[in-house]
Amino acid sequence: MKAMAILEHGGPEELRLMELPKPVPGENDLLVETHSCGLNPVDFKKRQSALGGPAEFPLILGYDVSGVVVGTGSRVEGFEEGDLVYASPSLARNGANAEYVLVDYRTAAHRPKTLDHVEAAAVPLVTLTAWESLYDRAGIQPGHNVLIHAGGGGVGHVAIQLAHLRGSRVLTTASSDDSIALCRQSGADVIINYRQENVLERVMEETDGQGCEVILDTVGGPVFEQCFQCLAMNGALVTITFTVTDKVVEGLFFKNATLHCEFMGVPAIYGINIESHGEILKKAAELIDSGRLKVHLGRTYSLENLAEAHQYQESGRATGKIVVTIRD
Amino acid sequence: MKAMAILEHGGPEELRLMELPKPVPGENDLLVETHSCGLNPVDFKKRQSALGGPAEFPLILGYDVSGVVVGTGSRVEGFEEGDLVYASPSLARNGANAEYVLVDYRTAAHRPKTLDHVEAAAVPLVTLTAWESLYDRAGIQPGHNVLIHAGGGGVGHVAIQLAHLRGSRVLTTASSDDSIALCRQSGADVIINYRQENVLERVMEETDGQGCEVILDTVGGPVFEQCFQCLAMNGALVTITFTVTDKVVEGLFFKNATLHCEFMGVPAIYGINIESHGEILKKAAELIDSGRLKVHLGRTYSLENLAEAHQYQESGRATGKIVVTIRD
Repeated sequence: MKAMAILEHGGPEELRLMELPKPVPGENDLLVETHSCGLNPVDFKKRQSALGGPAEFPLILGYDVSGVVVGTGSRVEGFEEGDLVYASPSLARNGANAEYVLVDYRTAAHRPKTLDHVEAAAVPLVTLTAWESLYDRAGIQPGHNVLIHAGGGGVGHVAIQLAHLRGSRVLTTASSDDSIALCRQSGADVIINYRQENVLERVMEETDGQGCEVILDTVGGPVFEQCFQCLAMNGALVTITFTVTDKVVEGLFFKNATLHCEFMGVPAIYGINIESHGEILKKAAELIDSGRLKVHLGRTYSLENLAEAHQYQESGRATGKIVVTIRD
Repeated sequence: MKAMAILEHGGPEELRLMELPKPVPGENDLLVETHSCGLNPVDFKKRQSALGGPAEFPLILGYDVSGVVVGTGSRVEGFEEGDLVYASPSLARNGANAEYVLVDYRTAAHRPKTLDHVEAAAVPLVTLTAWESLYDRAGIQPGHNVLIHAGGGGVGHVAIQLAHLRGSRVLTTASSDDSIALCRQSGADVIINYRQENVLERVMEETDGQGCEVILDTVGGPVFEQCFQCLAMNGALVTITFTVTDKVVEGLFFKNATLHCEFMGVPAIYGINIESHGEILKKAAELIDSGRLKVHLGRTYSLENLAEAHQYQESGRATGKIVVTIRD
């Protein structure tokens, strides 16, 4: 099969079109004919270095897929050949930057009926991340003040919608006009332009000086550190970033607060609660088909131009999800 | 009233017997005639420095009390003069190293019927800390592997019992013969002598290489850092210590894990869920009176010898709770 893969870690130029064997499904696998593949920051991170452990080369990236089931392992239930599915393939196996990809059936769901493959491929990874962060880890509730950093980002704009659907009050940060518009459209109650306003001051103003019960950090670095100050007593901070700082315990202790480090790769990599991903994507499809959840599509690329897509993702300038089309 | 108080932060010699005004109850307060007062590490920490904010002097320490209600504020419900009560007084007000102390009625409970004042004064702070850590924060479940560091300590031996009562499997660390005996008596399933064994190796052996779903760190420093390695995928680490380290996010991220920084002072200081402390102490009294929970008493001191009690606490050599007797 045709695949874009890397033979060693490095820049976008390492991504090379090559002919690789079509994968053979294990007992729990769907063999998916890839139509579209969403791009995420984890793609360029895994391209650059051995994130989370050594890789086997050639390595095919791509951790969002929408496609058609063309083969099933012996233990697969609920799916058959010809089904339209979407999923986030395991971060520990080859991804979807290829004509075919394997997906554990327990992590997959039927594609939302109202979306095409390009739109559906934008959904899984960011939705799983935002869902687990807010619903499963932080346990957001109606009336909670929930601060979502970078609300115009992939995870951010889905998180705004999920928090809004739960009846929480959503505060978010953004700066470009496009991002601000996306935050508004996603249902944010308070949009803080972090280039023009002091985020901490505005958060305190908006929460009667109490801070936010839940914060989702999708940015890291100094933004992560500032979260401790923006957090309410007994609050929960969720981060999906990897920030090295010695301020964590100091930041949480006198607030009796909690830090959740959210890594959505765990179920598929380790097989722990693996069915949770299929269940979340099923519920997400219902929300999408009833018009309550929308994943914003940005630029699309062909598989041959994957390196360019990586560069655009890496630039941090993208609003909306980047999707790579493998076949129509 | 007679009180041991400090006029500035410093060593045990700052603790001085003085005559101070008997406090006047606010609307939610019980005025408690202090019979006994438990000692905790927070006593010497607050003596040494302005832990958690500036203090007003003279400052009376002592955050565990068993005594008799001799006055009530206008909004007090469920208590009357003559009641025998126990509580952990607010860390933001004067404590119980005095003939009288104020306690918000919502943080107090009736003294366990089977205990005297000396025994009851050993209970509140460590029990609240262990209870909140394991039941409210980490949410331990039957069958969880729960690692409790320093199982022979004040919080540790209560935590072992609470985890055991919940049906969890309890692993703990200890080294002295006294501590090991107390861990065994408290219901620990696995006792790791950290001076003779490699804690991480033993934890992995005992958990089929999976690590512990929940860990309670009562030690800090390198022990806190090692907890990340001992933690299972999706695990929860609770710490009651204040460790400065840049390893937290790295330690939690790829395990999709959670850090709870437990500070039991929050309800009484800020009035948030303040009634939770009264409720926990009520349940603890039932467990004690039915013989299912036992707080181990160590040395007792008179109020005049409080400095000596502080030195013993600070030495880290104490097994069992230190209690100071104010009146019989």
